[in-house]
Amino acid sequence: MVNEDDEVVLQGVVNGKIPSYSLETKLRDCKRAVYIRRLALERITGKSVDGLPMEGFDYDSILGQCCEMPIGYVQIPVGVAGPLLLDGVEFYVPMATTEGCLVASTNRGCKAIYVSGGATSVLLKDGMTRAPVVRFGTAKRAADLKFFLEEPLNFETLASVFNKSSRFGRLQTIRCAIAGKNLYIRFTCSTGDAMGMNMVSKGVQNVLDYLQPKFPDMDIIGISGNYCSDKKPAAVNWIEGRGKSIVCEAVIKEQVVKQVLKTTVDSLVELNVLKNLTGSAMAGALGGFNAHASNIVSALFLATGQDPAQNIESSHCITMMEAVNNGQDLHVSVTMPSIEVGTVGGGTQLGSQSACLNLLGVKGASKESAGANARQLAKVVAAAVLAGEVSLMSAIAAGQLVKSHMKYNRSNKDV
Amino acid sequence: MVNEDDEVVLQGVVNGKIPSYSLETKLRDCKRAVYIRRLALERITGKSVDGLPMEGFDYDSILGQCCEMPIGYVQIPVGVAGPLLLDGVEFYVPMATTEGCLVASTNRGCKAIYVSGGATSVLLKDGMTRAPVVRFGTAKRAADLKFFLEEPLNFETLASVFNKSSRFGRLQTIRCAIAGKNLYIRFTCSTGDAMGMNMVSKGVQNVLDYLQPKFPDMDIIGISGNYCSDKKPAAVNWIEGRGKSIVCEAVIKEQVVKQVLKTTVDSLVELNVLKNLTGSAMAGALGGFNAHASNIVSALFLATGQDPAQNIESSHCITMMEAVNNGQDLHVSVTMPSIEVGTVGGGTQLGSQSACLNLLGVKGASKESAGANARQLAKVVAAAVLAGEVSLMSAIAAGQLVKSHMKYNRSNKDV
Amino acid sequence: MVNEDDEVVLQGVVNGKIPSYSLETKLRDCKRAVYIRRLALERITGKSVDGLPMEGFDYDSILGQCCEMPIGYVQIPVGVAGPLLLDGVEFYVPMATTEGCLVASTNRGCKAIYVSGGATSVLLKDGMTRAPVVRFGTAKRAADLKFFLEEPLNFETLASVFNKSSRFGRLQTIRCAIAGKNLYIRFTCSTGDAMGMNMVSKGVQNVLDYLQPKFPDMDIIGISGNYCSDKKPAAVNWIEGRGKSIVCEAVIKEQVVKQVLKTTVDSLVELNVLKNLTGSAMAGALGGFNAHASNIVSALFLATGQDPAQNIESSHCITMMEAVNNGQDLHVSVTMPSIEVGTVGGGTQLGSQSACLNLLGVKGASKESAGANARQLAKVVAAAVLAGEVSLMSAIAAGQLVKSHMKYNRSNKDV
Amino acid sequence: MVNEDDEVVLQGVVNGKIPSYSLETKLRDCKRAVYIRRLALERITGKSVDGLPMEGFDYDSILGQCCEMPIGYVQIPVGVAGPLLLDGVEFYVPMATTEGCLVASTNRGCKAIYVSGGATSVLLKDGMTRAPVVRFGTAKRAADLKFFLEEPLNFETLASVFNKSSRFGRLQTIRCAIAGKNLYIRFTCSTGDAMGMNMVSKGVQNVLDYLQPKFPDMDIIGISGNYCSDKKPAAVNWIEGRGKSIVCEAVIKEQVVKQVLKTTVDSLVELNVLKNLTGSAMAGALGGFNAHASNIVSALFLATGQDPAQNIESSHCITMMEAVNNGQDLHVSVTMPSIEVGTVGGGTQLGSQSACLNLLGVKGASKESAGANARQLAKVVAAAVLAGEVSLMSAIAAGQLVKSHMKYNRSNKDV
Repeated sequence: MVNEDDEVVLQGVVNGKIPSYSLETKLRDCKRAVYIRRLALERITGKSVDGLPMEGFDYDSILGQCCEMPIGYVQIPVGVAGPLLLDGVEFYVPMATTEGCLVASTNRGCKAIYVSGGATSVLLKDGMTRAPVVRFGTAKRAADLKFFLEEPLNFETLASVFNKSSRFGRLQTIRCAIAGKNLYIRFTCSTGDAMGMNMVSKGVQNVLDYLQPKFPDMDIIGISGNYCSDKKPAAVNWIEGRGKSIVCEAVIKEQVVKQVLKTTVDSLVELNVLKNLTGSAMAGALGGFNAHASNIVSALFLATGQDPAQNIESSHCITMMEAVNNGQDLHVSVTMPSIEVGTVGGGTQLGSQSACLNLLGVKGASKESAGANARQLAKVVAAAVLAGEVSLMSAIAAGQLVKSHMKYNRSNKDV
Repeated sequence: MVNEDDEVVLQGVVNGKIPSYSLETKLRDCKRAVYIRRLALERITGKSVDGLPMEGFDYDSILGQCCEMPIGYVQIPVGVAGPLLLDGVEFYVPMATTEGCLVASTNRGCKAIYVSGGATSVLLKDGMTRAPVVRFGTAKRAADLKFFLEEPLNFETLASVFNKSSRFGRLQTIRCAIAGKNLYIRFTCSTGDAMGMNMVSKGVQNVLDYLQPKFPDMDIIGISGNYCSDKKPAAVNWIEGRGKSIVCEAVIKEQVVKQVLKTTVDSLVELNVLKNLTGSAMAGALGGFNAHASNIVSALFLATGQDPAQNIESSHCITMMEAVNNGQDLHVSVTMPSIEVGTVGGGTQLGSQSACLNLLGVKGASKESAGANARQLAKVVAAAVLAGEVSLMSAIAAGQLVKSHMKYNRSNKDV
Repeated sequence: MVNEDDEVVLQGVVNGKIPSYSLETKLRDCKRAVYIRRLALERITGKSVDGLPMEGFDYDSILGQCCEMPIGYVQIPVGVAGPLLLDGVEFYVPMATTEGCLVASTNRGCKAIYVSGGATSVLLKDGMTRAPVVRFGTAKRAADLKFFLEEPLNFETLASVFNKSSRFGRLQTIRCAIAGKNLYIRFTCSTGDAMGMNMVSKGVQNVLDYLQPKFPDMDIIGISGNYCSDKKPAAVNWIEGRGKSIVCEAVIKEQVVKQVLKTTVDSLVELNVLKNLTGSAMAGALGGFNAHASNIVSALFLATGQDPAQNIESSHCITMMEAVNNGQDLHVSVTMPSIEVGTVGGGTQLGSQSACLNLLGVKGASKESAGANARQLAKVVAAAVLAGEVSLMSAIAAGQLVKSHMKYNRSNKDV
Repeated sequence: MVNEDDEVVLQGVVNGKIPSYSLETKLRDCKRAVYIRRLALERITGKSVDGLPMEGFDYDSILGQCCEMPIGYVQIPVGVAGPLLLDGVEFYVPMATTEGCLVASTNRGCKAIYVSGGATSVLLKDGMTRAPVVRFGTAKRAADLKFFLEEPLNFETLASVFNKSSRFGRLQTIRCAIAGKNLYIRFTCSTGDAMGMNMVSKGVQNVLDYLQPKFPDMDIIGISGNYCSDKKPAAVNWIEGRGKSIVCEAVIKEQVVKQVLKTTVDSLVELNVLKNLTGSAMAGALGGFNAHASNIVSALFLATGQDPAQNIESSHCITMMEAVNNGQDLHVSVTMPSIEVGTVGGGTQLGSQSACLNLLGVKGASKESAGANARQLAKVVAAAVLAGEVSLMSAIAAGQLVKSHMKYNRSNKDV
């Protein structure tokens, strides 16, 4: 039963007199806004959203930040895999997923890594990018700006312009690509513990504002010219990196391959060559030389409040396997050049996601060193991918994939 | 306060005597298993997961299907954009996201489309794929199998083998790629209203079992040889399609471009050429000729229980813009060759996700025509992407991107 | 000393009264036209082209077919490698090249293959493609044409239209790609012993003429829409093939690897994984999973009058190496999906190139079976690439590359 | 009639007692070696190579440098297009080709550019690359070397090691890519007027020799690890450049578009978007956003003694067209990031090729500035591509392609 006050507003929304998006501002009560918006939606569409929970969520926390016109929230179950022994530290990895097998499989990979002595990781690079496109009257002029921007003597000035509106965003490099009269300027900067897209965008805007009077014939076509490249599979990220570039490795002992993973070192090495390298080559893959990095990246991204749309480039990964120690043991590694994560901002501040960051010990901004939490999170992502690769590849090598999916990943209701 | 019975089990888990994964089976009470697993996790790690809700979720619903070793769930707020007028029908689009601006922006795109008369979509193809890799002693033998599988006369037999274990999975085509002695066999089948990976995997297993005695020298290396290609950016999906291939279009009236989108037709057409076509070409993009398809795909996937890891290929999209009607109006389209969605199985059966499917009128299996719900969902995805592209491109063309993100996408706490 | 008659014409060319391109028509003497054009060029530019031979070439043979405004010819030395034992037949392979080491290296590969029992090849596919781009008012209409063209019931009619202007061009398949309102229609046809671009273009033109009245709103934008894809690196060729698709293999005996190739099976297998598979994956290669297929393809193309611009897709190649026979011997293969060659038309009819085709026994049109010569030539190309891969990979594995290039590939004059 | 002395040697070659490759050394007479090798080849194969000229070529000039086991040479006719007005200078462009239409078409493009005031070019980058692959026991160690090599403080030392064996090769940058334990090290250096592959290889060998004792656990797998990337289509070249990176542009006047090119500015702009940008995007092209750059690159490469196998990356090109001056005129540009050319070494020193370089005024090493001739040649390549693009695109836009190919590109004998 809708109370009278609510009914008035509700009717306003239904008949279009009150725009749905204005409810929060108008009512100054986020939850009530959600409540009325839901009802209006149901009345307008004649469809129920009953199963979508509304209670138990702080709608103030997303206002003006995370989601407009909320009507509730979806629940993604979080399983935990681990301990994942990485660089000598044990992590329990929260994975938000609805794909059967995934947590169990990753957990098996964690176990194989654990009993073999753990995984090791190295951060190779750390910088977020944004690339506006600007246009000139001639390619000659576009080249003039390119030379100006890439001139080492100008870097200090450009950096100070770029850096002025953020405490953490520090310009690292500027790289330009020309297509005729059009110039794509890829700025890379450090971003502290934030994923950093907003930070880099602001810095870029600063530089463009600074350049405009110096290059009055420069026509700013767009703050993003797709050479960044955000949320698209693009070679520029695979080759140059974006966000955190990580390599993570482990040596899995022969006994562990046999007993935990139920396969052999030789089978794994061969499968890796024929599936992850050759099969992907045949398929025309771009940065997709792995079995299922995307699965683990998505699950960890969702659990920890990252942007799931960025799993596209964050899942770029080449998985390598090699027999070592006289062919007895398995060296396995994942190299991931563009893991885009943060521990502040965006979805990281929501209650459930924040709890998962806390479980990993990387909640919020690092007190010790700017960006240390985000970098640690990226390493955990890579190590979890390593575990996922080890386990799925073993299941495929052992011929168990269909079987285990039949077991874990089917609703009895559907069959 | 943990009660005494729970404490015993809890200590068993903490000291490793009771494997965490066995709790559901052992306790025959899913929720209690979650409860104890959480406590154990907190005790082992010394870290709290307080903000991660546990109550309000049916853990029985995920057992053996969606997520192992659950400790709770994350909440992803769901905003609603719309009405999205598509093929004459109004849809209200649920989007689960934590990215500020996204729902508001998509909503603006929906409005622009609505007042211009709506969007239209065409399904170009519908088939899920799986490609095992098998190896022979010689390339000659691999070619023998290729010719056997691609011989039209053999199709009926192979199809009946493939189809036998599923009511919906119907073999459509077999395409082979050879790399020396190794054969990658890409099976495509219809899958009803399921996304269909399990269905196709079972069919493939059937065929492999059938082929083995006929080709005794065939060595099955893996049920997936990455030529499928699942959850990796790969040209084979971009070119051949995977799941649903959709094109969706609208004509946005000049007045609407000006008043709703605050830009001009010419600016949009030019930006599309320089960003989505040229910028992506410069970046070495693969199927990424769009502004942010991935954002909308992810949000809809999460809301409706799809596999978010599949947004990699599901977001493949080329956005085209052209001035029409004597250059006055804007024709805009998105072409998306590999949208992988289902309305049964996986995460679609969970309460909150199911509610979102219901809102779209595509919950569960279609009664009228097998697969009709999944196909409709794919069309909604494409149309929502269309709305998203129209709106973001307009914001960039108008130079508003940084500003609106600064407004919508930042926690005051962080600044 | 230029004679008087020539001097008159020469001055006419120099002062612009006689267009250079009209000399052949005007003089009705191709050689004299060349002679005068050269003189005019030297007089105009003040530069000598002395070293460029003019004598010894039949300029009538290229008139209106191969090269306009000729002034002479370049000489590319032809070395011969072999015998190349392929499918039981010995071939001596003519290679036109100026790269030191190349013939010697390929020859070594031929020897290694020869003493190991020869190479074997399989033709996987044979069809040339052309893809016009047409545009409609809506994507819906573009889809209508797509469905029409892909409808099996329409194939016979379309094929008879396509086939009508050529004895050899026989339509095989039509595949469509949509980008919004624009349709790319990839026609594939057999082409006898011709490379076939003209043949397929004519057939395509026939079909477009046939379709225009049926789809009056179809706007033919271009006879080639780059989806063919000719002379550009493109996934569509890598995945679908273009021209001849060939796989070629050999088993190199352990002793041969040691004594002829001066390396070991293990070193080769490892190098192949790390260079041709992994290195190319890291570089974002497209169809470039080989050491130097392009070198051999170019040399054979030039010797036999093929189009050297087509070596781009003709060099697409994945080289695989595997230890076989208990790890003792080396199985090596090259898979090349788009070798575009012919034995009639274009440069194949010139004297020197024709002689090289004759040496290979594939000159002109096959008397026995249409296309047999062109297919045989494609197999020789693949087998020669196999030899080239075996040898260069061995040189690299043995650490000899720099050394041998220093020896073979340097003019003493330059050092 | 073979004379007696020759007959003895000939029989030795035929019966295998005298290796064919040893003839030059044994006879100390290159031409006689060729003569006998030809005869032997004909006797062994029973096939004539009559049409392949032997006379008129200096076989001493290729000994140990350009081609082993020569039996003659092929003749590629050279047509001349021009004047090509580039940066204020007129060039007459020699094109070695057997493709009908090509010279005529390029010539038309030159004319359109000429009467519009000429083309302008900018060199964006100039450096040749080589990337060895080395392996370590762990990814950690591979990363150690990466950090060492990329550390600015170490650059001077590494450069002096690299530079020591060449007057012209000057190290510019070192960029590393990691795949697990394997490191790909891409060295870039200036190379004077040489194309520079040997130069960079020697420098790389120097650095590897220097590093080995410092990193004794470094295992040098190959001097080239395909990350260079030579003669393969790879994103790394498209994005980073290789050899000379050039942008070249012109504004074609409206009248010229109509009268010389027989089409309209609008048609060209539209065709460029739908074919060179969209069509190539649909085809999954890599750096192939042009109509036929490869045709012109190949023809110029052959005429001037470049390596035709390198046309693969040298033809990477994006062609842009835009209406300017109130939509009346056409701005057209080509951007080509990896043109690999030299004016010394390799085939450039042969008589006919050298003459073509002389015609362009870029023969041999530049006296004024090291590398100036090679850079000028690269600019001419780009400008000729520009002319080729303008003309072919116009022919397609005007619907003339099939017709003109039917006219120019067919032997009457074959029809």
